[in-house]
Amino acid sequence: MLTSSSYTPPLRELRFVLDELLGIDESLKALSLPSPVSREDIDKVMRDLAGFAEKVLAPLNAIGDREGCVWRDGEVSTPAGYKAAYDIFRRRGWAGLGAAIEHGGRALPTVLTNLVTELIGSANHSWLMYHSISRGGYECIRANGTPQQQAAYLPQLGSGAWTSSMCITEQEAGTDVGLLRTQAVAQRDGSYRLRGLKRMVTAAEHDMADNIVHLVLARIEGARPGAQGLSLFIVPKRLPGTRERNAVRCEGLEDKMGIRGTPTCWLRLDGAWGELLNTEGNGLAAMFVMMNIARLATGMQGVNQSEVAYQMARDHAATRLQGRRAGKDKDKSHAPAQPADPLIVHADVRRMLLTQKAWTEGSRALAYWLALQVDRSNAHPDPQLRREASDLVSLLTPMLKAFATDNGYASTTLAQQVMGGWGYLDGSGVHQYIRDVRVGQIYEGANGIQGQDLLGRKVLGDGGNRLRKFLDMVLGALARHEASAVLQPWIAQTRTLCARLEALTQRLIDRVASQPDQVGASGHSYLRVLGVLALAWLWIEMASIAQRKIDAGQSDAFESAKVTTARFYFAHLFPEVEHHLLVADQLSDAVMALAADLF
Amino acid sequence: MLTSSSYTPPLRELRFVLDELLGIDESLKALSLPSPVSREDIDKVMRDLAGFAEKVLAPLNAIGDREGCVWRDGEVSTPAGYKAAYDIFRRRGWAGLGAAIEHGGRALPTVLTNLVTELIGSANHSWLMYHSISRGGYECIRANGTPQQQAAYLPQLGSGAWTSSMCITEQEAGTDVGLLRTQAVAQRDGSYRLRGLKRMVTAAEHDMADNIVHLVLARIEGARPGAQGLSLFIVPKRLPGTRERNAVRCEGLEDKMGIRGTPTCWLRLDGAWGELLNTEGNGLAAMFVMMNIARLATGMQGVNQSEVAYQMARDHAATRLQGRRAGKDKDKSHAPAQPADPLIVHADVRRMLLTQKAWTEGSRALAYWLALQVDRSNAHPDPQLRREASDLVSLLTPMLKAFATDNGYASTTLAQQVMGGWGYLDGSGVHQYIRDVRVGQIYEGANGIQGQDLLGRKVLGDGGNRLRKFLDMVLGALARHEASAVLQPWIAQTRTLCARLEALTQRLIDRVASQPDQVGASGHSYLRVLGVLALAWLWIEMASIAQRKIDAGQSDAFESAKVTTARFYFAHLFPEVEHHLLVADQLSDAVMALAADLF
Repeated sequence: MLTSSSYTPPLRELRFVLDELLGIDESLKALSLPSPVSREDIDKVMRDLAGFAEKVLAPLNAIGDREGCVWRDGEVSTPAGYKAAYDIFRRRGWAGLGAAIEHGGRALPTVLTNLVTELIGSANHSWLMYHSISRGGYECIRANGTPQQQAAYLPQLGSGAWTSSMCITEQEAGTDVGLLRTQAVAQRDGSYRLRGLKRMVTAAEHDMADNIVHLVLARIEGARPGAQGLSLFIVPKRLPGTRERNAVRCEGLEDKMGIRGTPTCWLRLDGAWGELLNTEGNGLAAMFVMMNIARLATGMQGVNQSEVAYQMARDHAATRLQGRRAGKDKDKSHAPAQPADPLIVHADVRRMLLTQKAWTEGSRALAYWLALQVDRSNAHPDPQLRREASDLVSLLTPMLKAFATDNGYASTTLAQQVMGGWGYLDGSGVHQYIRDVRVGQIYEGANGIQGQDLLGRKVLGDGGNRLRKFLDMVLGALARHEASAVLQPWIAQTRTLCARLEALTQRLIDRVASQPDQVGASGHSYLRVLGVLALAWLWIEMASIAQRKIDAGQSDAFESAKVTTARFYFAHLFPEVEHHLLVADQLSDAVMALAADLF
Repeated sequence: MLTSSSYTPPLRELRFVLDELLGIDESLKALSLPSPVSREDIDKVMRDLAGFAEKVLAPLNAIGDREGCVWRDGEVSTPAGYKAAYDIFRRRGWAGLGAAIEHGGRALPTVLTNLVTELIGSANHSWLMYHSISRGGYECIRANGTPQQQAAYLPQLGSGAWTSSMCITEQEAGTDVGLLRTQAVAQRDGSYRLRGLKRMVTAAEHDMADNIVHLVLARIEGARPGAQGLSLFIVPKRLPGTRERNAVRCEGLEDKMGIRGTPTCWLRLDGAWGELLNTEGNGLAAMFVMMNIARLATGMQGVNQSEVAYQMARDHAATRLQGRRAGKDKDKSHAPAQPADPLIVHADVRRMLLTQKAWTEGSRALAYWLALQVDRSNAHPDPQLRREASDLVSLLTPMLKAFATDNGYASTTLAQQVMGGWGYLDGSGVHQYIRDVRVGQIYEGANGIQGQDLLGRKVLGDGGNRLRKFLDMVLGALARHEASAVLQPWIAQTRTLCARLEALTQRLIDRVASQPDQVGASGHSYLRVLGVLALAWLWIEMASIAQRKIDAGQSDAFESAKVTTARFYFAHLFPEVEHHLLVADQLSDAVMALAADLF
């Protein structure tokens, strides 16, 4: 029963989302993209990445977990096979799928670079990290850099020849960056010298690329305390031009619960040369440019780990014999010639698998749809539509990040539960997914912070306007599908939920002025409600597409599975909102009343 | 921020549960115990175990995780310090706290041996396992053995000189023991020779005790297939009397997600000598004698890991500075002289901590109360009361096992979430608790099986009678507290839930005859509802005790914390039933409709 880690890219599912749900061809044609994307381009990218993920990266996943990265005297060796895989990735031009044409990239829109996060991330979360962080660094310099800085760094980052790191956290400052102490001292030539010790820096040292471009949040000598005093610096490992080593050194690696194939570094800046990115005191703003992309990618990690763990549990349940189905029916799922039925006949096992399936497919649909809104917000010719898309991105990104990673953790845990004792053993490969996906709930803003960002800033911050626009969009979609008898009960459930969420929001708006703790007290549950609602809408959209084909006699098993999974979603997962609508509505005093020393 | 693993035994809390909630002195006096237990006995046992757990075992917890057990040529070395700790445990007579006086034990009732599971388990889950398994072996031989067998094994097991193992699982047979293939061949002298390969055997080989008594489930040559053909055998590592090695050998250890200080063994029986325990074909019945105790202990593992992880998160939140409390109030929780407030001021952090606290204290109360019912069912002089207690044990034990371990996993995960990125690092010590507690959801009957046992066998199996008796008991308790204005709203919530659960149960009774899959489809959610209800009742009991002291002016902070935590329970955790009442009521078709090959 030892199952080695394996992964089958869900291509049919991805085509369904891109083609049938998002109408990707038409959707992209409506945008002013730097380079047109053809149907064939999309297919080729998808097939290429799928093959690379399945054949090259998936087999390295367990190796990375077992070996980890090895630090020696400031240098870091990556696990066996990682560098060779990176060389292929770079040579094939995949590192630059999202980079600008002028930097040697392919300028693909976010909805398509999302395929990298999904396919590569399912195969090997740790390996993906090196690239994801570099994508962030690329976008940050592109958005904030001078022409000289862009010319010096972007072609190298765009091609994947160099990678990047984001140096934020210090010993005493994590979420609260206002406490950061790393200092930058201005030099006569306009450059800076930086001193400090950064921690928790992903991929700040490794052997896969020629150079590593550190983006470092620091305080210029004399700057004000707090977050407003922070500036962002480019601090390359090797100085551009000279290739000399900069005074920056990896002092060690963290041992950690998961993503063990990614080095999490202590980085010492010891009078390191750096150049200011954007302007003094604008460090946070410069960095936040890439925050939506990073959170979307993190949400996708919840989806991609959930997908691969689901595949493993499903295959186990189909083959592992255990017990007989309840009752006496000679159902076709029975295996009367075998000493027992496969696990998949049992209702409780199906409950666990369907939970994973419904969450994974629903959250995937949401993530690609949201990625398309990112592209619309950047590249739609109509400024009104750009603004509307931008509002949706801003509202739903924190929700996706937290909702999909929370569900990813629950889903990988359910996969292990389906596998029972075998799943608890290293040889099964499944607990790596739990340990790897767990970090997604913590990094890029812990999920509690996402709940507060959503409720405090995105919903209450504009008096509920963005939320109402989203609800209007959902209600409009529901109205279009109302004729379908199959969908009707789910539409009714979802419509009622829209009204309840709007009423809850109004109550919270009224309450928050006198109860500022209410945002923190309600944020988590509010986020869960919005997540379940968004997936309800998308399950209706997906089931509607499938049901139309069924009604037209053009369906196969895929469509039938979609409608049946939607039904499960509304029966078993949707009711979660009953819990969280009540909790989000509780006065904040329920959590604030206990004196701090009585915990 | 590297916090080493540490543990402070919650003695005040334990005294509250034993003395104030259970009235332990009076409760035990009402029983016909083999040996009276005085107030001083209880205090001494609690203090002794607490000191040993805190000072000796807690410091070994991280070591056990890091080093694991080492197999070499059939022998297993335990982690540094484990054996020395076991020698102390044995010498002090703690291995025999639950064993009969005639076997050198102290004959303490279950409600008190539960202290071992709590205190030692919080300090070191892996280390506890060696003892827990041996306790099970002792009870199994005591219930099923001939006088000769009892004389040969029980004094050694009772004193802890020998340990025991339970050999059940094989490669192709886990939950479904009917598929077991290990064979026993009768010898002329009445003994048996056993052949087979057992897997997943906890502590089947180690260096802590002189001898290991394996209890092996096997099929006597010619016996019928399936579970009814199984018999149970005593197969000692060294033959009693001669001390010769038996033909049983540990062939290797499993590497696993957690409890890495406990060896999980492959055990080869190669014509091993064994003696039949109980009679032929009664293997399962003989083994199930100890099932309630084992499940109660597993439930306690959920509680004890939750407790220690909570302590770690709470201490982190009290000291780690991050952000300012929402709003402008100069609350006393603020630390204006510091650069930021401690985490504990934030509503979302408090939500996470209070969730852990309310679950831990509520489940602890349930576990000790249930342990007392075990004692009542064994030792109350009134047979009617014994039967009633036995019904409660039978109904609530599967619930406690699954509910407390599911909550334990969620709670340890929340502890890590409170600690953020630091919690993801090995140095924090917190993720060991997640990995260790996880096994409790899987072993001793996976939690899905508990849901089916509860709903199918314990509730529907007797037409809902046991459930109604429990609800009557709860309703009676609620009526007694009704005068309290503080408790009144919680009593109303709980009373309504009793009625809803009874109505749901009736619908499921009506449906299950035609829908046998309904048990599996509804079991998990049904169990959650019953768990939340049981804790609601106990939170009302606990809050009532505290409130009476507050009203009488005899309270300190402890009582105030109890009432405030109860309030949080009813505001944030109780509403979970709204989700699960709906799900448990869904037709099983929602999970059965998807064809097996469409997953």
